[in-house]
Formats: sequence, structure tokens, C-alpha cells
Amino acid sequence: MTEDLIYNKPWIMQRADPYVLRHTDGKYYFTASVPAYDRIVLRCSDTLGGLAEAEEKTLWHCHESGPMSRHIWAPELHHIFGKWHIYFAGGEKDDPWKIRPYVLECSGDDPMTGEWTELGMMRCREDDEFSFRAFSLDGTVFENGGAHYYVWAEKVGVGKQISNLYIARMKDANTLDTVQVMLTTPDYDWERHGFWVNEGPAVIKRGGRIFLTYSASDTGAAYCMGMLTADENSDLLDPRSWSKERRPVLSTDAEKGIYGPGHNSFTVDAEGNDILVFHARTESEITGDPLYNPNRHAMLMPVRWENGRPVFGFDNI
Amino acid sequence: MTEDLIYNKPWIMQRADPYVLRHTDGKYYFTASVPAYDRIVLRCSDTLGGLAEAEEKTLWHCHESGPMSRHIWAPELHHIFGKWHIYFAGGEKDDPWKIRPYVLECSGDDPMTGEWTELGMMRCREDDEFSFRAFSLDGTVFENGGAHYYVWAEKVGVGKQISNLYIARMKDANTLDTVQVMLTTPDYDWERHGFWVNEGPAVIKRGGRIFLTYSASDTGAAYCMGMLTADENSDLLDPRSWSKERRPVLSTDAEKGIYGPGHNSFTVDAEGNDILVFHARTESEITGDPLYNPNRHAMLMPVRWENGRPVFGFDNI
Repeated sequence: MTEDLIYNKPWIMQRADPYVLRHTDGKYYFTASVPAYDRIVLRCSDTLGGLAEAEEKTLWHCHESGPMSRHIWAPELHHIFGKWHIYFAGGEKDDPWKIRPYVLECSGDDPMTGEWTELGMMRCREDDEFSFRAFSLDGTVFENGGAHYYVWAEKVGVGKQISNLYIARMKDANTLDTVQVMLTTPDYDWERHGFWVNEGPAVIKRGGRIFLTYSASDTGAAYCMGMLTADENSDLLDPRSWSKERRPVLSTDAEKGIYGPGHNSFTVDAEGNDILVFHARTESEITGDPLYNPNRHAMLMPVRWENGRPVFGFDNI
Repeated sequence: MTEDLIYNKPWIMQRADPYVLRHTDGKYYFTASVPAYDRIVLRCSDTLGGLAEAEEKTLWHCHESGPMSRHIWAPELHHIFGKWHIYFAGGEKDDPWKIRPYVLECSGDDPMTGEWTELGMMRCREDDEFSFRAFSLDGTVFENGGAHYYVWAEKVGVGKQISNLYIARMKDANTLDTVQVMLTTPDYDWERHGFWVNEGPAVIKRGGRIFLTYSASDTGAAYCMGMLTADENSDLLDPRSWSKERRPVLSTDAEKGIYGPGHNSFTVDAEGNDILVFHARTESEITGDPLYNPNRHAMLMPVRWENGRPVFGFDNI
């Protein structure tokens, strides 16, 4: 089953916020933001490497106007609450920065062929007066101790804003069961380049610990990854349960020509080795607004484990 | 020098956000928010107990309109950078909730008789795009390792807002030398009653540790005190240096008839014992908006030390 994977080089071109899921049946799925930000795509393959050449199917196209009509970003595929769901964020034609999190649900067992319907916007708990009121995106889901948790990025502030990460327990696929709790805010210089940003959360669990990586700073060469850690038996809704790394865990390596690595997900190769899926640029100079420059490419990197902690690096080969 | 102090009962009536300073010459000073929220007052006495009967002098009166014309709140007196300064917050007649932090400076050596001039609004560092942009108040100052730090409360959010605590190092009496760093946000139920509030920071240093108390929730019976702790040799601008108590360190005791204790400062009695200065109500039912009900009274409480940590409680007598 061993296959040769291409590490730390463009693996799938012009696919940002790459997300890979290996389902319980062994099949691999890939989705990502496409440069036009106008649709949800999905690929399926029997192998991780095969995703690069797999046919990309458009599951859903953005609306003409209103909610979910612009800036369709960072889809993730999760089989939870008995069905396939896709979590993504989108803006509005007349208000393109009114980014909110939305959910799609599949009626069939095969996400490539089943019918997808909109569940609408992610819903906070009734007495939550803060969640999803502002620019909110990058929702991810993870399970722990039989409960599902939703982690997302949301901006706060008057005038210029700050993007923090929040967590809540889920009641069902599109409803939160608890009020938001803040997990991290941009505290350090490396999280404050251009914009003060924490976004793109992704979770990997090993050895009784939960590692939550996220991305920081603006979407150029300063973009990088940070990490939080919690014990899986702790109260994940208590910020005291999470500790934050003082330094980024992955950042630009100009010598290797990899700029702004981030917005990652985690998967495993055929042998079960952990693989980091991330996007990065190969150009140090970006033409125009980085957000609309299409050259963020999906890449793969083996995760190295050291003292029970994941280590990311372009020499991990 | 021993004097009998009244503990856990109204000590100075209708004075909220009470602040006591024992200066290096042994003199005690008292200031607080007055019910009309229209002035800065100061008392001086040779003894702590004597402040209750000391003449209260109005040092400064709010403007007719514009900045500092409404809601004059939470003054603190500090002798730093070679002069006496008063830190306070104020709103505007035409925009009473545009609360911002301001500084007064005294030209003389005696704050009761010297001339006070306005230094204007507290100034953030030039590249700080967030501080003092929204509802900001309760600035306090403390010294550590030769540097002065400013800690304040500021709201963030769209629509309904959340009041967090921030820290920065000071350059001079009214200018910050570093960009804001968040110290605490209302994470727990006891910080989220009515409004999500962290405010009223106060610092006490003992045994190599810095204890930063603050107040949480809305200004009624739910108002209570939380606490952060840091090692005095740690980087105080790194949130990782601070740990937060899971539970309030002082809250309402209905049996004793003390409601909503908080917004404290610290001083010492004649023998050098630590004293908590706080306000609380003696009525469980508040008539009208709690903010405009004048019956928050200044009280005193001995601080008990246990394993090097301050313990607050109405049985500390």
C-alpha cells in the first residue's frame, strides 16, 4: 500500500485551505477553497496521492445574491450525527465581508453522488448574544469523549477588527449547545502581521492529548501556524485547559521557497502515519491583494512526533 | 499606631470604585466615583481610619460638554514619573457611553493643594490600532522591575460588547510604550451575568508574585472579584505568564448582607497589614438602574495570606 507522496511542494495547485478526510472505509476525500470562491468542490480517491489526479466534482454553487453568494471559503467534510456534512463560510454579493458559517447536509451515503441540501447558517445557543454576529469563518468539528465540538474564527472590535478562535459544544450538526468560549486571540507579533488574525483551526488527537493548530497573521509570507494543547480528559470549554505555544510551529522557509504555510488539516497516509495538509505559496512576491492571488497551493508534510507532541518542519521527510 | 477599623461594613458611604493610596511619607489618600459622576475628589489623612471623616476636596470638575463631560469614573492617584497623577475615565455629554481614559497631572508636591492640569486622553503607541478605540475605563498603574505597566478595561464586539482587560508598558505618565495585550476575557458564568465584564483591575505584589484582581459581571449582586497571578520575573506582556482563577475570589454574601463586592484597591494599615478596599451594596434589591443607584459604599477587609496567596472573605477579621 505504500505510495510515494510529494512533500513540501505543490501537490494540488491553486487550492487553498486544503482539507483531507480519510473516512472509516479507507476512502480519501479532498475539498478546498477554489480561486473563484464560488463553489464547493469534492474529490475522492482510494489513495491519498490519488487525490491529486482525481476528478473534482462541484457539489454546490454559490447563490446569485444574498447569503452564501460570495467568498465561499474553507469547506470541510465531516461524517457526524449520522450523515455527511460540509461546513464552510460565505459572504453576500451586496456585503461581501458579511462572512458567516453555513452547513450543507447530504441525504445519501456517498458524498460524491448524494444530494446536498442547505441547513442554513450555523446556529448559536439561544442565549448566546455574540457568536456569528460578525465576520465568522473556518468552522471545524472534532469529537472528544462522545461530544462534538465546533471551533471557529470570529472577528471582534470596532473599526479595525481582531480575529479570535472560539469553541462550543454541538447539539446537532448545525446548532451549538453551549455559549462561546474564547480559545486564543493574537497575543504575539507573529500573530499580528498586517492583520491580527487567529483562524483556520484543525485538530489532531494523540496519546491522550488534543493538539489544535491554527493560522495567524495576514495571508502573505507572514502567514504561519500556531498551536494549542489540551488533555483529552480536561474540560475543553474551559480556556485554562488549553496551553498556547509561544512561537509559531510552522512558518515561511525562504530558502526552500515556501511562503506563508498554513490553514492546515490533518490526515494519515496508507500506513497510518500522520500527514499535515496545508497551503503555501512558492512566490515571495505576491501580485495584487494576496486574497485574490490564486497561487496558494495544497501541500503535504509528514508529521514527526517528539515527546508525544507533533513537530512540523520542511525537513520532516 | 493601632487603630480600630470597621471591616465589611459601609466605611465611606456612597463612594464606589474606592481607591486608597498610602504614600511613602505615610499619608493616606482616598478617591472614588461620586454618585453624580461629575468630579474628581480627594481626601487625605494621617491614618487609614481617618479617611472616613476627612474633608473631601474636589480637585477637578467635569467639562460642560465634549470629552470628560459625563460619567467621571474610577479615579486613581499615583505618584509616578516624578509627579502626582490621577487616572480616570469619562464620557461625553452628547455621547455619554463614549468612555475613554484620561490623565491629570499635579504641578505641586501636595496633591490636595497643588494645581492639577489635564494631560488629555491616555495615548496608545503609534502603531496600536485597537487601544482606546472603544469604551475604555478603569486604568490602573503598577511598577515592576523598574517599568510601569498600565492595565485597563476595554470593550470589543459588534452590537452587544464584551469588556476585557488589557496590559501595556508605559513610556511616560500618559503614553503607552507597547501595543495592547489581552490579559483576561469573561470566560466563565460568574463573569457573564447581565453583561460580559472584566473591569476594575488592581495589583498587589508579595513574595515574588503579582496578584491582579478584577471585577466581573454587571453592577448588581452578581458583581464579584476574580484574580490573575504572575511571577514578578516573568514577561508581564506575555499572557502565558498569567494564570486565572477558575472561581471568583470574592462574591456576594447574602447572609452577611453584602451584595456585589468589587472594584477594589489595596492598601496597608498602620502596622503594614494588607487591606482590601472595595465597594459593595447592603441592599439585595436595587431601585432603578444599578449604575445610577448611589448605594455602593466603600468598605475595608483585612487580606489573609495562605501559602503565599491572598485570601479574601467576609470572615477575615
